[in-house]
Amino acid sequence: MEKMLDAYQQEFHSKYGVRTDLAVEAHEVIVEREGPPEIPGVIIDKEQTEHASICRVSIESEVGARMMGKEPGRYSTIEAPALRQHNREIHEELGGLVAKEVKWFIEQSQLGPEAVILVVGLGNWNATPDALGPKVVGELMVTRHLIQLSPPELREGLRPVAAIAPGVLGLTGIETGEIIRGIVGQVQADAVICIDALASRSVSRLGSTIQISDTGINPGSGVGNKRMAINQESLGIPVLAIGVPTVVHASTIVSDAMDVIGGDDPDQKQMAEELPQKTSFNVDPKAIMGTAPPAEPQAETPQALSREQRRQMINQVLEPYMGSLIVTPKEVDELINDVANVIAGGLNSAFHEGIDYSEIFQYLS
Amino acid sequence: MEKMLDAYQQEFHSKYGVRTDLAVEAHEVIVEREGPPEIPGVIIDKEQTEHASICRVSIESEVGARMMGKEPGRYSTIEAPALRQHNREIHEELGGLVAKEVKWFIEQSQLGPEAVILVVGLGNWNATPDALGPKVVGELMVTRHLIQLSPPELREGLRPVAAIAPGVLGLTGIETGEIIRGIVGQVQADAVICIDALASRSVSRLGSTIQISDTGINPGSGVGNKRMAINQESLGIPVLAIGVPTVVHASTIVSDAMDVIGGDDPDQKQMAEELPQKTSFNVDPKAIMGTAPPAEPQAETPQALSREQRRQMINQVLEPYMGSLIVTPKEVDELINDVANVIAGGLNSAFHEGIDYSEIFQYLS
Amino acid sequence: MEKMLDAYQQEFHSKYGVRTDLAVEAHEVIVEREGPPEIPGVIIDKEQTEHASICRVSIESEVGARMMGKEPGRYSTIEAPALRQHNREIHEELGGLVAKEVKWFIEQSQLGPEAVILVVGLGNWNATPDALGPKVVGELMVTRHLIQLSPPELREGLRPVAAIAPGVLGLTGIETGEIIRGIVGQVQADAVICIDALASRSVSRLGSTIQISDTGINPGSGVGNKRMAINQESLGIPVLAIGVPTVVHASTIVSDAMDVIGGDDPDQKQMAEELPQKTSFNVDPKAIMGTAPPAEPQAETPQALSREQRRQMINQVLEPYMGSLIVTPKEVDELINDVANVIAGGLNSAFHEGIDYSEIFQYLS
Amino acid sequence: MEKMLDAYQQEFHSKYGVRTDLAVEAHEVIVEREGPPEIPGVIIDKEQTEHASICRVSIESEVGARMMGKEPGRYSTIEAPALRQHNREIHEELGGLVAKEVKWFIEQSQLGPEAVILVVGLGNWNATPDALGPKVVGELMVTRHLIQLSPPELREGLRPVAAIAPGVLGLTGIETGEIIRGIVGQVQADAVICIDALASRSVSRLGSTIQISDTGINPGSGVGNKRMAINQESLGIPVLAIGVPTVVHASTIVSDAMDVIGGDDPDQKQMAEELPQKTSFNVDPKAIMGTAPPAEPQAETPQALSREQRRQMINQVLEPYMGSLIVTPKEVDELINDVANVIAGGLNSAFHEGIDYSEIFQYLS
Repeated sequence: MEKMLDAYQQEFHSKYGVRTDLAVEAHEVIVEREGPPEIPGVIIDKEQTEHASICRVSIESEVGARMMGKEPGRYSTIEAPALRQHNREIHEELGGLVAKEVKWFIEQSQLGPEAVILVVGLGNWNATPDALGPKVVGELMVTRHLIQLSPPELREGLRPVAAIAPGVLGLTGIETGEIIRGIVGQVQADAVICIDALASRSVSRLGSTIQISDTGINPGSGVGNKRMAINQESLGIPVLAIGVPTVVHASTIVSDAMDVIGGDDPDQKQMAEELPQKTSFNVDPKAIMGTAPPAEPQAETPQALSREQRRQMINQVLEPYMGSLIVTPKEVDELINDVANVIAGGLNSAFHEGIDYSEIFQYLS
Repeated sequence: MEKMLDAYQQEFHSKYGVRTDLAVEAHEVIVEREGPPEIPGVIIDKEQTEHASICRVSIESEVGARMMGKEPGRYSTIEAPALRQHNREIHEELGGLVAKEVKWFIEQSQLGPEAVILVVGLGNWNATPDALGPKVVGELMVTRHLIQLSPPELREGLRPVAAIAPGVLGLTGIETGEIIRGIVGQVQADAVICIDALASRSVSRLGSTIQISDTGINPGSGVGNKRMAINQESLGIPVLAIGVPTVVHASTIVSDAMDVIGGDDPDQKQMAEELPQKTSFNVDPKAIMGTAPPAEPQAETPQALSREQRRQMINQVLEPYMGSLIVTPKEVDELINDVANVIAGGLNSAFHEGIDYSEIFQYLS
Repeated sequence: MEKMLDAYQQEFHSKYGVRTDLAVEAHEVIVEREGPPEIPGVIIDKEQTEHASICRVSIESEVGARMMGKEPGRYSTIEAPALRQHNREIHEELGGLVAKEVKWFIEQSQLGPEAVILVVGLGNWNATPDALGPKVVGELMVTRHLIQLSPPELREGLRPVAAIAPGVLGLTGIETGEIIRGIVGQVQADAVICIDALASRSVSRLGSTIQISDTGINPGSGVGNKRMAINQESLGIPVLAIGVPTVVHASTIVSDAMDVIGGDDPDQKQMAEELPQKTSFNVDPKAIMGTAPPAEPQAETPQALSREQRRQMINQVLEPYMGSLIVTPKEVDELINDVANVIAGGLNSAFHEGIDYSEIFQYLS
Repeated sequence: MEKMLDAYQQEFHSKYGVRTDLAVEAHEVIVEREGPPEIPGVIIDKEQTEHASICRVSIESEVGARMMGKEPGRYSTIEAPALRQHNREIHEELGGLVAKEVKWFIEQSQLGPEAVILVVGLGNWNATPDALGPKVVGELMVTRHLIQLSPPELREGLRPVAAIAPGVLGLTGIETGEIIRGIVGQVQADAVICIDALASRSVSRLGSTIQISDTGINPGSGVGNKRMAINQESLGIPVLAIGVPTVVHASTIVSDAMDVIGGDDPDQKQMAEELPQKTSFNVDPKAIMGTAPPAEPQAETPQALSREQRRQMINQVLEPYMGSLIVTPKEVDELINDVANVIAGGLNSAFHEGIDYSEIFQYLS
């Protein structure tokens, strides 16, 4: 059956030319072209609030996973351009949406009120756009050490939460996954929640999309390096990944520019419109700020330029920095602070049911 | 004569298609195409050291100024890719080169040993790539207040230096030029030296080029807004501007990408090679991090795409952020620190002849 | 009459042994000991809210000024131990109290809706406890540059506000008063509001007292150095000073400790109780973090130890740092952020009547 | 024998009234009073350089350990008031002294050139005086991940080094010792080196003493809480602790002040002179910046005041902050940066013999 599925998947890919890390997008492509499809074991749920639209894709079968090109699991995507506004009320609403997804994860993973959750803020605090994870950790209500010392009646409604921002491989010399595995063993954590800044394929997602998935983080999936995954398989406990795109690689927008201008060729233009590649984003934290090179130019995209020509042209524009150039909004400092507040508020609210939701935002810095 | 010159200048521009803020480049274009030209009143001086090449362009006549498309004055450009290396010895050498240019300015402006120099660190300390000026100010040996209290024999070899990092218009509500003019009047400064992070037209110049010019800073020259200049005319005293490119506008590299791919058309390709536009950079500090929009797509460049088509295509790639997206190296924090050390070391050395050059770098953080 | 007043004042001082910068305290001493006194031209107004007590002392006559040992003017003191709580709702209430005092100042100074106010954040951003002023400036809604460009109908309810954090003498080489005077002249400001971190005489006031006074800042008043005052006299326009104690000099608490233990002597103990010196605080910004030495041991206090003995003993405890040691709460970073939010919220609300009060706190970071 | 030693130790304590964490001081007290003593198994080695004096105390027997009141092990203390000078050359010399002690530890622990060393920067990066450990980690040449990928001929002279700054209990909810144990297991570290900011009993040691000991960190030794030790026993591999005092508790200097004034009583004065308590410092990292209360007033000291009286008096001076007030030099930011450079330079030099010593300081920021 494995084989058959592989064949199925390949056909899917060659049919749609889709390669995306966002489950929501993989599904959209199919729907848009063929009408509501019959993908077995893939359930889509959409919700619209005042400032956000939420899309939840549950991939519950191997067949569905292969058709979607994604691991089985649940993928929630909160899209909220209003996240970019420096407005506390909107942030509280969005924090509530994050809390809802996290609570779903807690229930789904059958974590009781005394289960210990370890929150991991991935990324490099020295580089503003990569500091999202560490900043969220800094805003969390960390309680594990307090609860150990408290009488049971005071613990009511407070869950034991631990948190760490371990830094990146270039700073520690240690795979982040190894650090987490070591700590999970020591604190006997029952689940891990990772927060990470992502590199987006699209400028329009910067600071406005929150992706929450129970498949964890699979660094370099498909790229070929051997970075350790941070997921249920590697850690032995449920793992939730929360990611927000904060940068686009410069090579990505150069490549996009080439697509756009190449679009003067009518055929190619049509293809460009069909391809949702700009809306996918990469969940490898190391591909953003770490030492790994950015994904190379998307050569899977059919177009007039050969893969090699395109690479040379991108080099021509970006030399001598090439791989290390990133694109961010000028006001990225403020954006990161706001998004960190939204996520930390959502987590605090989901974790500690004994605390009033409005109170939680009172105490955020 | 005005008219004639204008005609001359226009002919020059249409002939070479050159528009650049770097005097060295304006000259290079002419030399490369026509051999050593006869530009009256323009003197070029080149120097090569182990890690840097220095080019000094003196524009001493109105005719030369118009031909070059630059204000009359002296423009020194230190090009040193080694600036990007995190190596203290190289930084000391480059600091020495900065000192040499600053000393030339001090002599040229006939500033005696007791003349007060006000150093102004332009830019926004909240945005890493724009924090160069404030960081240099933080490393300076500021002495004005000490010298006022010291007996003459102790002042030997110490010049009165004052410094300020006033912030940007969006933070203060005040034109930076107004703030400087107010302070110059109070401290009776004899000269001003401005340090600024620049937006470059070329990735290759990021963190590797130092431009030093006695024409000051002319925000938005040619763009049409009314930002106050910071130069001898506006302040009444000599003004030296030291600038280093730390960002490229995202729209610039998208535009470059379009040029490169447009080059598949042989004619266009040839044009692209002729055009040195990627090596120019913009000396408007506000165009980098401030509130002013970035320069619009370089429509002066003749090419297959109309100005309007190109603008639409750039929008397509950069929406919804468009004007506010910047491109930087990931390691921009470290780069800014290193460049600030080089410039501060150079200034300290040029200002205080009584202090041993090696000592100055001892005390830099 | 001068002479007579001086005699009167001396009698007052020798009678009560009072020396304080807080008008409220000077008055309290008198009231506590003698019942409601007959101080001509001194009016006291007290107010109590849920989380704060406010005391306003107006000194309206020369006689009152001399009796109180303070410049004529209005001194409002908001005491709110709840300021130390990291609670947004309380902060909003306290911000409202600050706004009330600032509005009083605006009315009193007859500043119309188009009068330009320059806010000055005094202090050194590199030293956490001294960074209050710069942090407030960073949170302000600065509008002067926007209003200049807006049509009148859009300006409704928005006042032109400019702001600057000029740094301290050791960083700039320029008296802060000179910088302000220069900018006031350029922007034609109609009033100045200075924010400053203060050194307190008492640990109990750290982060919990806001002093607001229309007498400006008189650095080193009574100490004998010649630092330039920042007040109506020096700037030619009304000046409001807002100060919050964030540090205590180590020499102060050593001195206090000596008083306490000296109290075993019954006579001395009584004296110590009478002396309110621990509740006064020093309004010289430079005495906190700047280059000026801290006030020397309070030798005015009568006690068993001679002035010289006491100084030697303090030296014995604090060598070799002596003058530069400060006492702060460990969590001073968070305290400064909270207080800055309260003051910035109060200022924004007082300045811009067209903006809803709750909205203002929405946009504070 | 245990019992006998205990009796011996008690006699020692009651005889000398000594309680100190610095081995060098425990020994000095004995020598000063009685001439060179016969302490079995305690070896002292002193060295003097241009800017530092180094004292190494090796406690090699149980008897010596009990007499000294310290764990058996080696304690090196580098005293260098010049550390406080912002001078790079002196810092390099002191870095060399640190390297020497670290090399001794590497040899002593029989760590081969391929043994993995994990450096742990203890402390809270949000609180300037506690940020020493994290800052050192930020300056280290971390190589473990690079060496794994390099061919053997390139690894020559480079040791595999990993590093982490885990944060403090209040931020993570996890005992720092647990985090380290988890990581040690994952990376199969062969030794751990901890860097920590310490609370000193004496102002004179702030920023000028480096204590290096192979006994690790024993939080709250003798205080009675159950914080996990970070030493060979708890981790199973050799542990080196490097500590520098950066704060004094406010309660300490208040207590000192009481001692000094109490010294007017001749008997008490004599006692005060005998007592070296001000020169000891506390090696519990949590007692500095963490959640643990500071050590209570030194009641072991015989004096006129009862323990309870003294506590009340200290409260009187420090209310309402009491336990959380710390004393630091104003310029603590710069001090921490300088000390971090010295220690990081020393570690880099000791670790990587293939790199020239002067080169190492070239690359420090």
